[in-house]
Amino acid sequence: ETIREKVPVTAIPGDGIGREVMAAVRQVLDAAGARIAWEEALAGAEAFRKGIATGAPQETLDSIARTGVALKGPLETPVGYGEKSANVTLRKIFEMYGNVRPVRELPGIHTPFGGRGIDFVVVRENVEDVYAGIEHMQTPSVAQCLKLITEVGCERIVRLAAAVAEAEGRKKVTVATKANIMKLTEGMMKRVGEQVLKDYPSLTPEHMIVDNCAHQMVIRPEQFDVTVMTNMNGDILSDLAAGLVGGLGVAPSANLGDHVAMFEAVHGSAPQIAGKGIANPTALLLSALMMLRHIGDFATARKVEHALYVTLEEGRDLTGDIAPEGEGAPTQAFVERIIANLGRES
Amino acid sequence: ETIREKVPVTAIPGDGIGREVMAAVRQVLDAAGARIAWEEALAGAEAFRKGIATGAPQETLDSIARTGVALKGPLETPVGYGEKSANVTLRKIFEMYGNVRPVRELPGIHTPFGGRGIDFVVVRENVEDVYAGIEHMQTPSVAQCLKLITEVGCERIVRLAAAVAEAEGRKKVTVATKANIMKLTEGMMKRVGEQVLKDYPSLTPEHMIVDNCAHQMVIRPEQFDVTVMTNMNGDILSDLAAGLVGGLGVAPSANLGDHVAMFEAVHGSAPQIAGKGIANPTALLLSALMMLRHIGDFATARKVEHALYVTLEEGRDLTGDIAPEGEGAPTQAFVERIIANLGRES
Ligand SMILES: CC(C)[C@H](C(=O)O)[C@@H](O)C(=O)O
Ligand SMILES: CC(C)[C@H](C(=O)O)[C@@H](O)C(=O)O
Repeated sequence: ETIREKVPVTAIPGDGIGREVMAAVRQVLDAAGARIAWEEALAGAEAFRKGIATGAPQETLDSIARTGVALKGPLETPVGYGEKSANVTLRKIFEMYGNVRPVRELPGIHTPFGGRGIDFVVVRENVEDVYAGIEHMQTPSVAQCLKLITEVGCERIVRLAAAVAEAEGRKKVTVATKANIMKLTEGMMKRVGEQVLKDYPSLTPEHMIVDNCAHQMVIRPEQFDVTVMTNMNGDILSDLAAGLVGGLGVAPSANLGDHVAMFEAVHGSAPQIAGKGIANPTALLLSALMMLRHIGDFATARKVEHALYVTLEEGRDLTGDIAPEGEGAPTQAFVERIIANLGRES
Repeated sequence: ETIREKVPVTAIPGDGIGREVMAAVRQVLDAAGARIAWEEALAGAEAFRKGIATGAPQETLDSIARTGVALKGPLETPVGYGEKSANVTLRKIFEMYGNVRPVRELPGIHTPFGGRGIDFVVVRENVEDVYAGIEHMQTPSVAQCLKLITEVGCERIVRLAAAVAEAEGRKKVTVATKANIMKLTEGMMKRVGEQVLKDYPSLTPEHMIVDNCAHQMVIRPEQFDVTVMTNMNGDILSDLAAGLVGGLGVAPSANLGDHVAMFEAVHGSAPQIAGKGIANPTALLLSALMMLRHIGDFATARKVEHALYVTLEEGRDLTGDIAPEGEGAPTQAFVERIIANLGRES
């Protein structure tokens, strides 16, 4: 094998358990031989406390702009500092308009839905809608927030969903909207979805009312392939969907823009267990696998994925939140078990 | 037993399977001796086709205003007629600001969550939020919808949730909001919720971010008792929740205002099976039980509920969507089985 150049990636450990899970993931990736030049960068509570209103210092923004690829742990917005979520701000600054969340049954993770072969992707618009940040008090007792939907925003997110479907050999794209109530905003997503998906004759287009979609995800989740929706609906349905296959502790995600991609664990900073060395690094590791594929390192991604799956299936040395029984192992034991399983080729 | 006066109730069969399930429910209620003077009224597709923009003729509105109580099947808004959902219009005309959806495991209805004792209530604000109907095109390619939240609206829905909790001897009220993103609108619901729940010292107040709430409903639904949320979030989460316990085919609901209460099945009109005599009347029957309790006829409600539960548990003569195996029975056989079980006292 020829020695590849290292790919620069910005690593943002973030708050709470972020530091631990980031260290764990970097250990696994290094052991697997991923050729990454990590640039560690600050964001989250510490940045806010330093008076940085975005929650991310200029050096961090510069690093992301330079590398174009980031791996990120959970960020907190401490009460009293900064009014805006650093996560949302980063998505906006780098116009990462697409949030991609795979929803797939994992070996060894037991859920009420086990064995049904759940395997779909939620593609969520990531910068518009009620996240546009236009909110005000009309009177002291009446508040208004603007739900803003643009044709450009709808088109690019539907095209992203279609691209994900094509890249993964999927067959169906379900556009979920509340167009029956919001004919103009949600209706725009429905209409643009129908229009844009005509460009992808290999994909079956489908429209579903979003509340029915939430219902169907619980009733018959195996029917979904790729789903796409506006920001707020996607926020709720992607968390619902993660719950079907083990929860946020094992849910990866990618924020994609035209210039920057940021891969993040969507779970919180879990302050109550932070620093104890017992946090589950799976969500961030699965996010890192999406990142490896994004930078073209499919071989390492496959290798790490295989080792993780074997480890989950064996059920030994898993952290407490996913351990099949008993105590649960420290993060480090879990990491070492994955690394030990790296050798075992599939 | 003294002969009670009949209570006038407006019956709106609605569209598709509405007529069949309404007939089934009235048969069961009559057999159980419910003393109701039904006023049958039109709403839905036929009304729209007659050019009635609300989907409900004036006589229907008059009947509801007079009786103050309605039982309603599914209403369609046919494409090309009327821009607005008749369901939503009725909620607004009569200011039915509260949507109450019990979420409870039913005997004989098998789900992946069976045996966990799911038993909670979703209380959804029913007239504000993006349902206020203020939507326009800012430019030909930019659409805006106003999310409108008022203090009055938040206060009354939280008080309704608290009243439901107290009436049912429940302990906890979870206010679910997206206040971390929408500090003013969703934040108002959070703040008013915290404030108002201080008036109910027997209830434990809780706040949860709504996407996390959706996740928790899938991960650990047994934790919930009463949940309350703004309209759109509640639309999605109530459908999600119904999915946990068997789906919309068995999900009752009540729309409550200060002067009018309307009980409705939340499923659709199912045109593909309409007229075949095989529709499942359970959702409308469970809604009718809420109605009986609303008008104070607890004895009949208990009796019908018991007969329904026995029938579901026996698993014989159930309609195809809930039959444990095989063909599924006609609606009429299901109804007769329930009526036969009315005699069997608990
Ligand atoms: C933390 C929060 C601001 C964020 C969001 O609302 O998008 C989160 O829920 C997510 O889904 O990534
Ligand atoms: C039919 C539709 C207008 C309605 C809503 O959005 O409220 C339905 O989904 C419901 O939950 O009752």
